[in-house]
Amino acid sequence: MAVNLRAPDPAQLHLVAGVELGIAMAGVRKANRKDLLVIRLAPGSTAAGVFTRNRFCAAPVLLAKRHLRNPVRALVVNTGNANAGTGADGLRRALTVCDALASSLGCEAGQILPFSTGVIMEPLPAERIVAGLPQAIADLGAGNWFSAAEAIMTTDTLPKAASVRVKLSSGTATVTGIAKGAGMIRPDMATMLCFVATDAKVARSALQRMTRQAADASFNAITVDGDTSTNDAFMCLATGKGPVARSAKDLEALGAALTEVARHLAQAIVRDGEGATKFVTVRVERGRSAAECRKVAYAIAHSPLVKTAFFASDPNLGRILAAIGYAGVSGLDTSKVDLYLDEVLVARGGGRHPGYREVQGLAAMKKPEFAVRAVLNRGKAAATVWTCDLSFDYVKINAEYRS
Amino acid sequence: MAVNLRAPDPAQLHLVAGVELGIAMAGVRKANRKDLLVIRLAPGSTAAGVFTRNRFCAAPVLLAKRHLRNPVRALVVNTGNANAGTGADGLRRALTVCDALASSLGCEAGQILPFSTGVIMEPLPAERIVAGLPQAIADLGAGNWFSAAEAIMTTDTLPKAASVRVKLSSGTATVTGIAKGAGMIRPDMATMLCFVATDAKVARSALQRMTRQAADASFNAITVDGDTSTNDAFMCLATGKGPVARSAKDLEALGAALTEVARHLAQAIVRDGEGATKFVTVRVERGRSAAECRKVAYAIAHSPLVKTAFFASDPNLGRILAAIGYAGVSGLDTSKVDLYLDEVLVARGGGRHPGYREVQGLAAMKKPEFAVRAVLNRGKAAATVWTCDLSFDYVKINAEYRS
Repeated sequence: MAVNLRAPDPAQLHLVAGVELGIAMAGVRKANRKDLLVIRLAPGSTAAGVFTRNRFCAAPVLLAKRHLRNPVRALVVNTGNANAGTGADGLRRALTVCDALASSLGCEAGQILPFSTGVIMEPLPAERIVAGLPQAIADLGAGNWFSAAEAIMTTDTLPKAASVRVKLSSGTATVTGIAKGAGMIRPDMATMLCFVATDAKVARSALQRMTRQAADASFNAITVDGDTSTNDAFMCLATGKGPVARSAKDLEALGAALTEVARHLAQAIVRDGEGATKFVTVRVERGRSAAECRKVAYAIAHSPLVKTAFFASDPNLGRILAAIGYAGVSGLDTSKVDLYLDEVLVARGGGRHPGYREVQGLAAMKKPEFAVRAVLNRGKAAATVWTCDLSFDYVKINAEYRS
Repeated sequence: MAVNLRAPDPAQLHLVAGVELGIAMAGVRKANRKDLLVIRLAPGSTAAGVFTRNRFCAAPVLLAKRHLRNPVRALVVNTGNANAGTGADGLRRALTVCDALASSLGCEAGQILPFSTGVIMEPLPAERIVAGLPQAIADLGAGNWFSAAEAIMTTDTLPKAASVRVKLSSGTATVTGIAKGAGMIRPDMATMLCFVATDAKVARSALQRMTRQAADASFNAITVDGDTSTNDAFMCLATGKGPVARSAKDLEALGAALTEVARHLAQAIVRDGEGATKFVTVRVERGRSAAECRKVAYAIAHSPLVKTAFFASDPNLGRILAAIGYAGVSGLDTSKVDLYLDEVLVARGGGRHPGYREVQGLAAMKKPEFAVRAVLNRGKAAATVWTCDLSFDYVKINAEYRS
């Protein structure tokens, strides 16, 4: 059902010097499924991350945040179980996995970042993960990006990966990343899980700043269902095996490359949104602040009525006006609001545009991709959010998940 | 699909002295359908109302608010078209309807309260409504409450009405009301449309206070899909043909009766929520303020993941914890949160309760009605919200509406 999304071409995923990936079938939840990924980093790598702001932050997220203070040597990711809503016992189980991987790789448990995704509030089968680690370690290799993207899928229908090259003053750096996510997507700063690596040498503080900026321009601008996950994490890893990024120009170029990869992956998550048949760009313009534009964009993007109208290709555009009206923008003068569907002016000055014909709206909405553009006409700020529709299959997938 | 909801028994709907109702088929959107209601009030009646806070407030709502300052003589309600998102032209059309009804009834247009519900952003066919008025006026009678409830239905599968009698010091008063609504339901102060009348004699200021209180305990505590309508209105009408309510005790008794009728109707709207198969009470206890409890309750009640789990009778309760976690309660200590499904303790101290067995959760959720109770353990406040599940039929109804 994914909207204009294909599996990445493994040949297009550039290797990142200093990064090895290993995959295993650990049987975390179901047998014979790739569900365990180990990412090993060369010594001297730097790591940065942004994490969910859900108060029920999962145990591995708590540990990953803590371990990020240390020189990171490896990441371990399992699907099938989110190890969230599991309290102190969940922390112990996540640490057991870190311990086991650390002793195999010859480092400290505090140098391992653990990540989990899957069902919430069930005990993590740490013993099965630990038992799967040797298989993943034996598989470690620089060419496993595609297989790693497959290993972190849950309700995703396709693996998600992206890769770019960026010229820095001292040479060409590579940025390659993978992500997973299709439901419980309204990242509050990152998606379910995304790992991007570069061979550039970059200071940790600069990497953290780039990571935050990339998140804001990508994962923080998407929503599938408005549910912020307990396990969101977006990690950027820099091995330093390639060119150095130190000058302002190099840092800007590298940051832009990270953002490009992150945005590609974030949009891939929406294209593969649970049950998605439409990929919709919601753009809100001429607001007083970016924050109020985001509020309006998310009100539109979260409205079940708007999303079912997207699904039906039904230009029932009053539902969009209604969402703008309840978005909570203080003092909004609705008589100044214009609404466009792609280039079609649908509503002008808060009411239906006299020249608008429903056949125009229908033509725009029948396409698998289109844009909704609301112009508030009260300021100079703007914001963009990417979302998908709400279909029968969204209900089917989520009513049947776990069973 | 409605959950434990039956059509009201017309014989149980007590007449309200001073109120007459007349119904017509005006062909507003479709032919041969009751779609026009006139409610005539005896001279000397008082009226109070609470209205949507959606900034795209519909034209009739704007007029109704304005006309409420005058002695109200009649209400006119049409379905099939919401006359919202229609700008100045929408106001003119609503006023045309008021003018026509006023001249037929021998009063001023400013004494008529207009209400519309249906599709947004399409021009109101005022001429068809005006043409239907004589039929509605000829039909005026005190015994038409059931038929009036039918006349205001849109995607409702059943008419909604309730009636109680309440003893005041000088005699027994009657409170009878009707409501409509099934989708676009997250009233910000009232539901789509609800009209409650009493024959009690009560001052307008007291009636307005009671209306607000009744709304807070009923329509302001329900949600189907989180979409706040442009046309919400909850009106209380007091004809003064019955006993006087003036003492504090009488006012309290009458207020309680209004609240009882309003709550019955609000719950009926949720039971008849679009595609609903479950009626769920979400109770949040021991928060610091009622506002934060409502925040948490609405986060649970709006989560598409929680709602699809309700639909599937799947005790995937981690989704509820996740919603609590992203509800935006500042400083929430998740390690103190307890979660109950009916009387079953599911999570204690933020994690799965060791004694909890999934078969218990399944048994609770298989019922058509059950309660989710989250205990925050950080204060003394509480809040309750009523909601329904998200089913295939919700998508079907909203993808097909209009077509």
